[in-house]
Amino acid sequence: MALIVQKYGGTSVGDIDKIRAVAEKVSTIVKAGNKVIVVVSAMSGETNRLVKLAENFSDSKGWALDMLLSTGEQVTISLLSMALREIACSATPLCGWQVPIKTDDSYGKARIENIEIQKLVSLTESGVIPVVAGFQGVDDSGVVTTLGRGGSDTTAVALAAAMNADECQIYTDVDGVYTTDPRIVPEARRLDCLTYEEMLEMASLGAKVLQIRAVEFASKYKVKLRVLSSFEDGDGTRITDEDNKMEKAIISGVALNKNEAQVMVVGVPDRPGIANEILGPVAQKNIEVDMIVQNSGANGTTDFTFTVPRADYEETLEILRPLAKKMDASRVEGDDKIVKISVIGVGMRSHAGIASRMFASLAKENINIKMISTSEIKISVVVEERYSELGVRALHAEFGLEST
Amino acid sequence: MALIVQKYGGTSVGDIDKIRAVAEKVSTIVKAGNKVIVVVSAMSGETNRLVKLAENFSDSKGWALDMLLSTGEQVTISLLSMALREIACSATPLCGWQVPIKTDDSYGKARIENIEIQKLVSLTESGVIPVVAGFQGVDDSGVVTTLGRGGSDTTAVALAAAMNADECQIYTDVDGVYTTDPRIVPEARRLDCLTYEEMLEMASLGAKVLQIRAVEFASKYKVKLRVLSSFEDGDGTRITDEDNKMEKAIISGVALNKNEAQVMVVGVPDRPGIANEILGPVAQKNIEVDMIVQNSGANGTTDFTFTVPRADYEETLEILRPLAKKMDASRVEGDDKIVKISVIGVGMRSHAGIASRMFASLAKENINIKMISTSEIKISVVVEERYSELGVRALHAEFGLEST
Repeated sequence: MALIVQKYGGTSVGDIDKIRAVAEKVSTIVKAGNKVIVVVSAMSGETNRLVKLAENFSDSKGWALDMLLSTGEQVTISLLSMALREIACSATPLCGWQVPIKTDDSYGKARIENIEIQKLVSLTESGVIPVVAGFQGVDDSGVVTTLGRGGSDTTAVALAAAMNADECQIYTDVDGVYTTDPRIVPEARRLDCLTYEEMLEMASLGAKVLQIRAVEFASKYKVKLRVLSSFEDGDGTRITDEDNKMEKAIISGVALNKNEAQVMVVGVPDRPGIANEILGPVAQKNIEVDMIVQNSGANGTTDFTFTVPRADYEETLEILRPLAKKMDASRVEGDDKIVKISVIGVGMRSHAGIASRMFASLAKENINIKMISTSEIKISVVVEERYSELGVRALHAEFGLEST
Repeated sequence: MALIVQKYGGTSVGDIDKIRAVAEKVSTIVKAGNKVIVVVSAMSGETNRLVKLAENFSDSKGWALDMLLSTGEQVTISLLSMALREIACSATPLCGWQVPIKTDDSYGKARIENIEIQKLVSLTESGVIPVVAGFQGVDDSGVVTTLGRGGSDTTAVALAAAMNADECQIYTDVDGVYTTDPRIVPEARRLDCLTYEEMLEMASLGAKVLQIRAVEFASKYKVKLRVLSSFEDGDGTRITDEDNKMEKAIISGVALNKNEAQVMVVGVPDRPGIANEILGPVAQKNIEVDMIVQNSGANGTTDFTFTVPRADYEETLEILRPLAKKMDASRVEGDDKIVKISVIGVGMRSHAGIASRMFASLAKENINIKMISTSEIKISVVVEERYSELGVRALHAEFGLEST
């Protein structure tokens, strides 16, 4: 007998029939002798509908918006509880404040501070399934808060950590984490398991299976995660801290990020503090900088290159142009038709030569590398956007990730 | 400076523009130096939408349904708070559990047991407008409850009582209580004021302006009520315990109820206990009996007549037929093409002759009276349905209720 936290996302509870199917899935696990706590998102489309209602008002942020949005999950927990009772499973819907899931008061992006488990323990002990609203909590003043988009994953992981659950299962519309996007590489393979670090790199690089925050939380509290499909059977992908890669591939996956743009300040006089002089004003505008590369150039000057979200490209250029003039730099250049391709794997820690294999593989396809950035378990390159698919396919093949 | 509780129903907050208009109304009262607590219903149509979702499940009653339905008002308080902030009014949305409004655990028809006023007092004292979700509360176990349809009126009256408010204003889609239905009598006049008793009789007889329960509550705690239009200016109708009818009409209004049917057990042997023998089995099926009349007949028998909701007419006949046989009654008769017309007024307590004027007025129009029932402030007659409008118009004129 195990204690399992299951989280079902918006598409998994998108209509009445799907809610019934979720109830059946939960019931199967319970009838096999396990205790289950269920966490659900709002029915797909519901949160957007509510956001549109709020957007009619000029001052729609703050706790009023959190209270509005929290109704989305509240509807789902009510309906799923009814569906469970219909098939003779005893269930109790619980809003965030009823658990309670205590958060700080950063409305719209609150952080979980504490989960009181007495109620959950007594419900599960007495054979009742707690059906908990994801994405929401309550602050010290009794005001409803929300954790921000995708917060339901975080709710599930936090509950699993607090309850010391045996596993936290994230049900979604894909059947696991893949070596790369199967729409680009049809031979992409579902991974049986992955480390938290690998998953973090995959998630931050555009594999939108799991919220980064939830993975960080799981890593911190060693919560065993599993990503599964709501619509198909299968074992999904386990995400744990086990690094049992002895006989496995060095590289776990190839990720593609199409949401960045590259900007370059050319011919900057090379003196201490220029990085901060350039990036300070960008950060002040809340623009997130990702890769940063500095090359020393000729004549005591240097070229300073970095990437920003593509949506912030024009604004970044506007910030940089007067700045470059003031700094006596030659010019500002940019390119918003670039992509970032990364290979990820804890195995590369102990294996030299991954980078050179990667560069050679891209060179063979005549793909020019515009930027390189490396971490312990990841190597990222920036290339022209038109090489996206070719680059991903080449690297996927190079590291033997195809299904057999 | 007064403390005013304002309640806005579903049509008053039916869309974004109407919510903005409500915010303006509230703001006007506040800027005039008053403190206001606002109670709102779900946007019109929303509760029905949620009920339809729930009806997909066989076991949709109980606390899961209450939690589902409570989201309707939760959406409205969020949006109205945004609308108020947009026009620089400080407002805080409050669900029932946040006030808290404590109820018993009769899910779907919970009764308010206690309202803790500390939070409301401190908000109003500091110039913040509490925007409270009507229709909902929380029981001792922290489970969300609802008060049943129309419960928002009750929430408003209960808050006004707890806060000792100067007035409880019920905003709706009519501009007050009328002497009779203006669709039947175009000359019907809006009443300036009315007693609780009169309002109770009017409401129970089909004037659907206010929930009976809310009026009872107001009467018990002497809460000064006022019914007003959300869409037009005007003073509306005050409902209080003042009986200042010195120079006013004896009769306040004429009410029509088209939702009843008449059944008669003819030739019942006249012995003690027959009323209970007949009505007991009817009550057991949860059929509500309204008027009851017993006439002594010939030969030691009696005729027993009563009215039931029209929807329960066939079932009532089915209960009575075998019963009549067992009781040795002659037969069971019935008529579901009848209506009940009533004249109401606290003035009739001290005035004889109202009944005879009523009967004479109907006789002049050749309307046959099939049943009569009287109370201290009301006389009701049952007549054939085809005489509905004629009867109401005759009585409205007889008692001089037309607008001048």
